[in-house]
Amino acid sequence: MILPALNDIRSAHERIKPFVHQTPVMSSQQLNRIFGCELFFKCENFQKAGAFKFRGATNAVLLLSEEEKNRGVVTHSSGNHAAALSLAATMNGVKPYIVMPETAPEVKKKAVAGYGAEITFCRPTLEAREGTAHDIIEKTGAILIHPYDNFNVICGQGTAALELMDEIVDLEIIVAPVGGGGLISGTSTAVKGISEKIKVVAAEPLNANDAWKSFTTGVLTPSVNPGTIADGLLTSLSELTFSVIRKNVDHIFTVCEESIIECMLLIWERMKIIIESSSATVIAAVKENPEFFRGKRTGLIISGGNVDLRRLPFCQLPTANYYTKG
Amino acid sequence: MILPALNDIRSAHERIKPFVHQTPVMSSQQLNRIFGCELFFKCENFQKAGAFKFRGATNAVLLLSEEEKNRGVVTHSSGNHAAALSLAATMNGVKPYIVMPETAPEVKKKAVAGYGAEITFCRPTLEAREGTAHDIIEKTGAILIHPYDNFNVICGQGTAALELMDEIVDLEIIVAPVGGGGLISGTSTAVKGISEKIKVVAAEPLNANDAWKSFTTGVLTPSVNPGTIADGLLTSLSELTFSVIRKNVDHIFTVCEESIIECMLLIWERMKIIIESSSATVIAAVKENPEFFRGKRTGLIISGGNVDLRRLPFCQLPTANYYTKG
Repeated sequence: MILPALNDIRSAHERIKPFVHQTPVMSSQQLNRIFGCELFFKCENFQKAGAFKFRGATNAVLLLSEEEKNRGVVTHSSGNHAAALSLAATMNGVKPYIVMPETAPEVKKKAVAGYGAEITFCRPTLEAREGTAHDIIEKTGAILIHPYDNFNVICGQGTAALELMDEIVDLEIIVAPVGGGGLISGTSTAVKGISEKIKVVAAEPLNANDAWKSFTTGVLTPSVNPGTIADGLLTSLSELTFSVIRKNVDHIFTVCEESIIECMLLIWERMKIIIESSSATVIAAVKENPEFFRGKRTGLIISGGNVDLRRLPFCQLPTANYYTKG
Repeated sequence: MILPALNDIRSAHERIKPFVHQTPVMSSQQLNRIFGCELFFKCENFQKAGAFKFRGATNAVLLLSEEEKNRGVVTHSSGNHAAALSLAATMNGVKPYIVMPETAPEVKKKAVAGYGAEITFCRPTLEAREGTAHDIIEKTGAILIHPYDNFNVICGQGTAALELMDEIVDLEIIVAPVGGGGLISGTSTAVKGISEKIKVVAAEPLNANDAWKSFTTGVLTPSVNPGTIADGLLTSLSELTFSVIRKNVDHIFTVCEESIIECMLLIWERMKIIIESSSATVIAAVKENPEFFRGKRTGLIISGGNVDLRRLPFCQLPTANYYTKG
């Protein structure tokens, strides 16, 4: 299996640069005080289509041949990859076909439709999704762009870490969430390519801890019925992403649901930015492992900001206890 | 009555610069398409203590004599000014006394306490608030820093517009919300001092339209029982702010509650930033007056981002209809 290298990510960066936002890196003195370390937030919630996924999707679309572009692209997803691929495709004159479970939130259906995709709805099972995507490929010849089990997608995702390290020098740790593993694969490849000394940490919900299990046992172990509020992290690693992770990731820290919700709320309240629950796992990892992060210059990949604002987990929570002086 | 001039605002800017954030100016191609104009968001929601109020409070505190600083500062407020004054005071070694109605949201009480203020609670009437503040002044000699009826506060508030015009050239319109009038007074003074050609618009909730009434009749007319979700704009103009507004503001646009909530949600969803309802009035003004803003380079002062995330107005709203192509 050929794994991505730093040069592949650098090439991806040159390729996608005209299409993606170079998102800002934010910081907060209050949060640094709360967590006892220096945090740098790479804000992919401000990326086009609201998540880092637009980087990988754009790289994959740009690398299609002209003949492939004419056939269109297809994926099955109810989440950020569907929106990202739709936008990346239409921006480049490629037709996107998206398979979505009929149970997907209205806000996501509208977003994907708004980006110009042709949506086919199916029953909310993996079999139905794969079957429907297969039917579309049969009929149209469209190219399947997998959300993470795809070399070009992984290279695109790694460009966020590249920009972060370019802007903030002397980082000691970089943390990204892990679901299917596309983001952490790209991130860890970029980081270790630039410096072996920087520690790479993957943050994963305890309730969807297939990456942690696979990493600690050395055997790829998919999740069974994962259940977490971090709905972007329900997917399991592929052979490809597992291989990259084994090679490049130093630690996988699992985090509990309470920490995810608490940290999401904390970031909203203090930084006034909207991050999705999957992104909150990286802050939860810092919160749950204070010794590991103490005093360290830590980069956090904030993966996205797509949240259904009509269904928020903290409408009924008590007030947090983080208010501190000055 | 001596009104502030551009030079006063420039001096305030030099004075407060080491203490305040130079907040970013953000923009969104999606929102430009939706509204048919070029919008530049001056993000005071990222200001310290979460609102522009920190600028005015800091300027007022820094202009106290040493003897006055030793006596402390006092204000009665349940909102952003209380938090801002508390932080500005403690950062400069001055004791803040804050009078708050006992009915203020828990989150605001904790924020003000967290900034190091001594809080005195009172009944939720203006009389009780003024009476309690008066008692504190009698007892401690603390200096009253009014949230807007204060020359130095107004000069501090104007520095946000100064930074905006410095960063974005050729603006044609600048919009700020109006409540008591401190922000729009500072803003309009800065704008007209730099160019008479730039139109200054104040955005005001229809349900708290004392500024609009005063402006159109020429007679200062306080609100009677105003009721709006934009809880930072319930206050009425003072003689001072009314005088500045008559001199420098071109238009006051009133906006309805539905627009405020819709625009607040729109900004959260599209820009992934948290703005408070009072700030949403400026986008609502653009939305409700498309002819006026069409094609114009428009600066918007986003006043703050302090929202009780446990009580949001749009948890039950239907999905918006703004999703557009590409």
